[in-house]
Amino acid sequence: MREVAIVGVGMTPFGKHPDRSLIDLMLEASHTALMDAGALETPIEAVHVGCMASGMLCGLENTATLLADELGVKPQTAERVENSAASGGSALLSAYLAVASGLYDVVLIVGGEKMRHLPTPQATRAIAAMTHPEGERPHGVTMPSLAALLTRLYMRRYGLTRRQLALVAVKNHRNALSNPYAHLRRAITVEDVLSSRVVAEPLRLFDCSPISDGAAALLLAPLERALEFTDQPVVLRGVGQAVDRVMMTERDDPLTLHAVKEAAGRALERAGVSIDEIDVVELHDAFTILEIVESEDLGLFEKGRGGEAVEEGLTAIDGERPINPSGGLKARGHPLGATGVAQAVEITWQLRGEAGGRQVREAERGLSCNVSGFAANAVVIVYERGW
Amino acid sequence: MREVAIVGVGMTPFGKHPDRSLIDLMLEASHTALMDAGALETPIEAVHVGCMASGMLCGLENTATLLADELGVKPQTAERVENSAASGGSALLSAYLAVASGLYDVVLIVGGEKMRHLPTPQATRAIAAMTHPEGERPHGVTMPSLAALLTRLYMRRYGLTRRQLALVAVKNHRNALSNPYAHLRRAITVEDVLSSRVVAEPLRLFDCSPISDGAAALLLAPLERALEFTDQPVVLRGVGQAVDRVMMTERDDPLTLHAVKEAAGRALERAGVSIDEIDVVELHDAFTILEIVESEDLGLFEKGRGGEAVEEGLTAIDGERPINPSGGLKARGHPLGATGVAQAVEITWQLRGEAGGRQVREAERGLSCNVSGFAANAVVIVYERGW
Repeated sequence: MREVAIVGVGMTPFGKHPDRSLIDLMLEASHTALMDAGALETPIEAVHVGCMASGMLCGLENTATLLADELGVKPQTAERVENSAASGGSALLSAYLAVASGLYDVVLIVGGEKMRHLPTPQATRAIAAMTHPEGERPHGVTMPSLAALLTRLYMRRYGLTRRQLALVAVKNHRNALSNPYAHLRRAITVEDVLSSRVVAEPLRLFDCSPISDGAAALLLAPLERALEFTDQPVVLRGVGQAVDRVMMTERDDPLTLHAVKEAAGRALERAGVSIDEIDVVELHDAFTILEIVESEDLGLFEKGRGGEAVEEGLTAIDGERPINPSGGLKARGHPLGATGVAQAVEITWQLRGEAGGRQVREAERGLSCNVSGFAANAVVIVYERGW
Repeated sequence: MREVAIVGVGMTPFGKHPDRSLIDLMLEASHTALMDAGALETPIEAVHVGCMASGMLCGLENTATLLADELGVKPQTAERVENSAASGGSALLSAYLAVASGLYDVVLIVGGEKMRHLPTPQATRAIAAMTHPEGERPHGVTMPSLAALLTRLYMRRYGLTRRQLALVAVKNHRNALSNPYAHLRRAITVEDVLSSRVVAEPLRLFDCSPISDGAAALLLAPLERALEFTDQPVVLRGVGQAVDRVMMTERDDPLTLHAVKEAAGRALERAGVSIDEIDVVELHDAFTILEIVESEDLGLFEKGRGGEAVEEGLTAIDGERPINPSGGLKARGHPLGATGVAQAVEITWQLRGEAGGRQVREAERGLSCNVSGFAANAVVIVYERGW
């Protein structure tokens, strides 16, 4: 397998785009990534789209071929990959394999979702399409309700406080203030979180990522050709994926996200590094509790220690273990299929030193964790400076 | 890249399955393929699902992880690939790459769609999600209307007769009589076709593939390990994909399906064989005209000669160029995401000599062609006996 590098990145601001179509958002992100790589004239051999629910949300399938057509490129391969909220991460993995295997050299990945044009119940219905159709959905189980159950159990077992939980949101909102692409660019306090309305006890509105529109894109090339496109290629040093039971209630211990743990183990092993050598992490904080649990399952903190780590500032941009400098799903926003790709865009900016006010100092290695369903499937990627 | 073989196949009957869910159908096909390969106890490293519109049709996303969970396997990778009506073909290509690259050894591919539980207008709406959202759909363009325009133009330019067109349907219905998995197992005459109701002039009901439920599955392994599973591995000798403009009106000549032509060129070149060395072909006859045009673009007949070829019996099971011995989309049925996988299942049966009354004599090499949109994207695969 060849080494593969990110040679161009782009994204739209996440948030509300009432006047723009899904394809339009994907086009903007694609153009920006191609320009970033100086590759507007380069033949693109494959287009991999990560998108969860273009059908349910926009009445649109066949998105990859349509995007290639509108972009005016003529790839050999165009396909959309769906892995619910990890569709972006999965599209990245499939494109990685296409380049690593030697099949193609120059491959475009675009993650995107358009959700805000629909009334919230309809958008929520599309999101709930990732729950178990027999074991969860008929009983009224939704993603926030699963997160609330997990939170309650975690608080009881490990003594996590409501305040520690709120601090995840406070940190991520603060980080997003320096991210011009973030959906929620507004500082909040612990009191703001605790006084926001209850979504699913004990979770409140500010514990939940918003419903966002947006797209993000990456251009991949073999490392040996990367300097044709950029002085600062970011190498995909190791990738890992793992699958768990769909229903949380069928897992041995719901407080350990085994898919995250296994995917991270595989990615780190393939990269030949330990988690202690990672300088910056983007993880899947669809709910505040998920940042805490994932940070433990990635091996950043011992199980049960994630809440204190946030309180002690370890996960802040200037902390020992910076998590979600972009603002994460919580504040950058969470256009489902775009998220996994946006994580890779952020890590690229961090490793290149282009992250402005949210720059993690001397970041040389990064890791992203994108999950699908309630962590029924996880994609973890280890990135490293290639120069 | 390693050589990759099909070591197990399975499918459900195509047709109406009112009491069964999409996942249920996929489970049956998966189990059958695993049993066929004697691999019920073998660790499955990846599950690739081909499905076009599980969201719009069944309110379900995250299908690959859900399927893996219900199947009781614990793969590293689970993902759904969407390429509209070529979702099955695209899932096969992505799984092929996973094995060819050396990443995984044993990979399951499942294509499926459940469509018949919805009223026809709603199913049609989901199918139309593959048309161009600005250039076609708002103007009332549907897949049958595009097929009708193509047919009219082809008849005018090449003198195709209505009778020749009807003979495609007559042949495919006849073939399906020997296929226990076919949706429409009923012999029809030219008169039946010509007296069926008009769908889009000059196309009639019997020119169109039916709306079907169903699933099909394949187990892939590296050729070097294939004999662990089967005495008759079928080698994926060459794969090819290509993309064209989405809108037929933006193509140089609508009567040539460039994506089919290019994908076939790539697949045959990688296989190192010419189209004349292919013994059996399964192609994408969503409408009768498509069998004729694709047969030309695959290189089986000169442009304009496809209609006469049908009339002369060249495409019959005992003809020189057998096409769609399974009954094709026309009579086997067309559960969108299942089709590309079902084509591979049929070619496997043909090469193994297990096709019963529809067996093509001494078939050693086969080819399948699965298209997406109105041939905006095509997947072509060349298969060969591996024993």
